[in-house]
Amino acid sequence: MTKTLGKRTYNLNNPPTVAATAAVVGQKEGEGPLGRYFDSISYDSYFGEKTWEKAESAMLRQCFLTCCDKKNISPDEIQAIFSGDLLNQCVGSAFALKDFNVPYFGLYGACSTMGESLALAAMAIDGGFCDTVCAVTSSHFCSSERQYRFPLEYGGQRTPTSQWTVTGSGAAILCASGNGPYITHITPGIITDAGIKDANNMGSAMAPAAYSTLKAHFEDTGRSPEYYDTIFTGDLGILGHDAVVDLFERDGISLGKHYTDCGIMIFDLKKQDVHAGGSGCGCSASVFASYIMQGFERGLWSKILFAPTGALMSPTSTQQGESILGICHAISIESAK
Amino acid sequence: MTKTLGKRTYNLNNPPTVAATAAVVGQKEGEGPLGRYFDSISYDSYFGEKTWEKAESAMLRQCFLTCCDKKNISPDEIQAIFSGDLLNQCVGSAFALKDFNVPYFGLYGACSTMGESLALAAMAIDGGFCDTVCAVTSSHFCSSERQYRFPLEYGGQRTPTSQWTVTGSGAAILCASGNGPYITHITPGIITDAGIKDANNMGSAMAPAAYSTLKAHFEDTGRSPEYYDTIFTGDLGILGHDAVVDLFERDGISLGKHYTDCGIMIFDLKKQDVHAGGSGCGCSASVFASYIMQGFERGLWSKILFAPTGALMSPTSTQQGESILGICHAISIESAK
Repeated sequence: MTKTLGKRTYNLNNPPTVAATAAVVGQKEGEGPLGRYFDSISYDSYFGEKTWEKAESAMLRQCFLTCCDKKNISPDEIQAIFSGDLLNQCVGSAFALKDFNVPYFGLYGACSTMGESLALAAMAIDGGFCDTVCAVTSSHFCSSERQYRFPLEYGGQRTPTSQWTVTGSGAAILCASGNGPYITHITPGIITDAGIKDANNMGSAMAPAAYSTLKAHFEDTGRSPEYYDTIFTGDLGILGHDAVVDLFERDGISLGKHYTDCGIMIFDLKKQDVHAGGSGCGCSASVFASYIMQGFERGLWSKILFAPTGALMSPTSTQQGESILGICHAISIESAK
Repeated sequence: MTKTLGKRTYNLNNPPTVAATAAVVGQKEGEGPLGRYFDSISYDSYFGEKTWEKAESAMLRQCFLTCCDKKNISPDEIQAIFSGDLLNQCVGSAFALKDFNVPYFGLYGACSTMGESLALAAMAIDGGFCDTVCAVTSSHFCSSERQYRFPLEYGGQRTPTSQWTVTGSGAAILCASGNGPYITHITPGIITDAGIKDANNMGSAMAPAAYSTLKAHFEDTGRSPEYYDTIFTGDLGILGHDAVVDLFERDGISLGKHYTDCGIMIFDLKKQDVHAGGSGCGCSASVFASYIMQGFERGLWSKILFAPTGALMSPTSTQQGESILGICHAISIESAK
């Protein structure tokens, strides 16, 4: 059976089961609308460490270990880890996972990392290379702000289009055998360039990438948006979400009321002063690894499309006048194979 | 047939052919011992651009396009690109490849990236997801020095153990069908921590990772070092190379005279003032995509093990007192399946 549908969708022959997930977040995320779905909420932004970078590693490590515990396996039973984060040289992931003696594939997909890691992890299982793998990522508001924008101590005013980087980590263990939910299809992202140069308007920069990948997914699979009980994009926030809705409406396609975005869900946009919504690798990852996957157990949905979005840029590229590139990887998860 | 040998080696059932490779380098690399094997040598360190970061993207783009030309296909016939580099947020790769409308998997493996990208690209083919994929990476001396160490204008003295970041890019197109050379086995790396904190002694920091992966490869496959005509590690330089030889000698294993390192090969260590050798993603990538793969055609070898090494660290992690982590991914390439 061919695994490729259309131009760029993989139809998995041996769909892996999402066997366990875990989400660890910070206080603000814990106080948001999804607070009760997370495995752990830290009221210490340092997670017991001395720096925010080390805090991010500690959070990711805790999330990985919690996920192993929930699957009732030891870390060394994991055959490969697919991980990355927003810190320069992805040190959040590397230092978090250095002690586990597990083959490590380091990724950089910006805030789309949970999509990229789930895609490659599922391919490693479907391709017959591994039976048990882990996809994990993180972001931390404090390490991210000082690296990408301003030192927190500076107290800069944030623009209305800006988003709030989620302090959170999400992990998923995929297994070759299991009773689902299954990863059935993958539509990998292409890099899109909408020409947007405002690093405080990431949602608009990433929306064309989400549109491109979702459109390719529908065309390749012959599915319509209604096929899915819910479609979740990554961290577009309210502006990016609305831009995606608009782009599809121009094609005469309604994404419907079951389309939402993890950046809108994780915070109370009216009460939590996060402007356009949440962002960061940890945004879609922690929402996926808690509310979304628990929704299968709770009977909220049986077929979802999870499409994390990422902005490929650095402070240096922005200073040199480059625009903000977008990418989005889409993953179908279904109760039945 | 099972694809997993031992603890962490994949035995590919449908080994992809390395159908074309290309290498683009800077002037210093062009003046080194391997100069005549590269496809293109730029005597302009800016590659026609205004900044070194844009120069790195231009070099990687040129390398990717040269590789497509050598395979006689257009870029949009590539079904997936696996790419990454050393720049913060891997902007070298993203901006180089933004215009090609090809599914993009961004990687961060530091200087081991060519090994990681070849591994995942080969798995995408062997797993049945793609027929034609590209693995590509780059590094640039000038963008790397100012990001990791000092501004070039500072004119800092380099320590004797330091290595010289290669200005170079290497690309490989892998195909499901072809007459070889074939990627037959993959041993992915685990993160190792040798406790070394001197960012000017990367070779020693990465040597234990190379030892770990090569040892696992020999144990998993039952092969001895003599099985291979030549074993190439990534960018250990002379100090790291000798450390790997020593580590195996403690086990009573001689790596033999056919073990060498891309960081030793690319420069004339006596005449080119590079101290311990070459480094950077572009080091192993450009040597692989030129001299090593041309060696199959020239009859120099028919079975090689290519094992790029990477140092997982950032200036921030080093400033915070963390040690330099190492990783190494090994790829068997053989004329016969």
